[in-house]
Amino acid sequence: MMKGVIEMSEKSAIVFVGSKTPMDYVLAVMTRLSAGDAEEVVLKARGQAIATAVDVAEITGNRFLKDLKVSRITIGTEEMPAREGENRARMVSTIEITLAKE
Amino acid sequence: MMKGVIEMSEKSAIVFVGSKTPMDYVLAVMTRLSAGDAEEVVLKARGQAIATAVDVAEITGNRFLKDLKVSRITIGTEEMPAREGENRARMVSTIEITLAKE
Repeated sequence: MMKGVIEMSEKSAIVFVGSKTPMDYVLAVMTRLSAGDAEEVVLKARGQAIATAVDVAEITGNRFLKDLKVSRITIGTEEMPAREGENRARMVSTIEITLAKE
Repeated sequence: MMKGVIEMSEKSAIVFVGSKTPMDYVLAVMTRLSAGDAEEVVLKARGQAIATAVDVAEITGNRFLKDLKVSRITIGTEEMPAREGENRARMVSTIEITLAKE
């Protein structure tokens, strides 16, 4: 699968987006790219953090690194283990946004 | 712009995703497709509703209409007018997810 190939690439870095502010992840993206070891960054998020991941992609590209473009967006579903007091596994949506230098 | 072309197409329907539950919008998607006048549906959302739009796309395709595929995802930024008591316009992220019959 293409997904596996890109994740394994030495030139691709992954930033997991969670519940911090968008700017925290913008800084993480810029750090990974400026270190020179990554030519693209894959933002990964699930659930409510999906909206934050989109913010991160937009802020990074519009405000800081104007030569950075969204090269790929994929969405999916993951099964999460049941939380305490719940009987069933929950399904949660995911997103992967790949940002690449032009 | 491609965006304009697709919105103007007679075979494309738009579903705006807001603060209701994902299932409300899943039903809206299925209604538009089953009416026969649309071959694809574009889900549009902004801000926190972006996560809901991804849920709607995933639930519709995985659970109800298995021949429906995500054909395109685009993200963007819109300027929203300042709210009462605020001085500045706010920037808000947007997403468009196109679901098309195979």
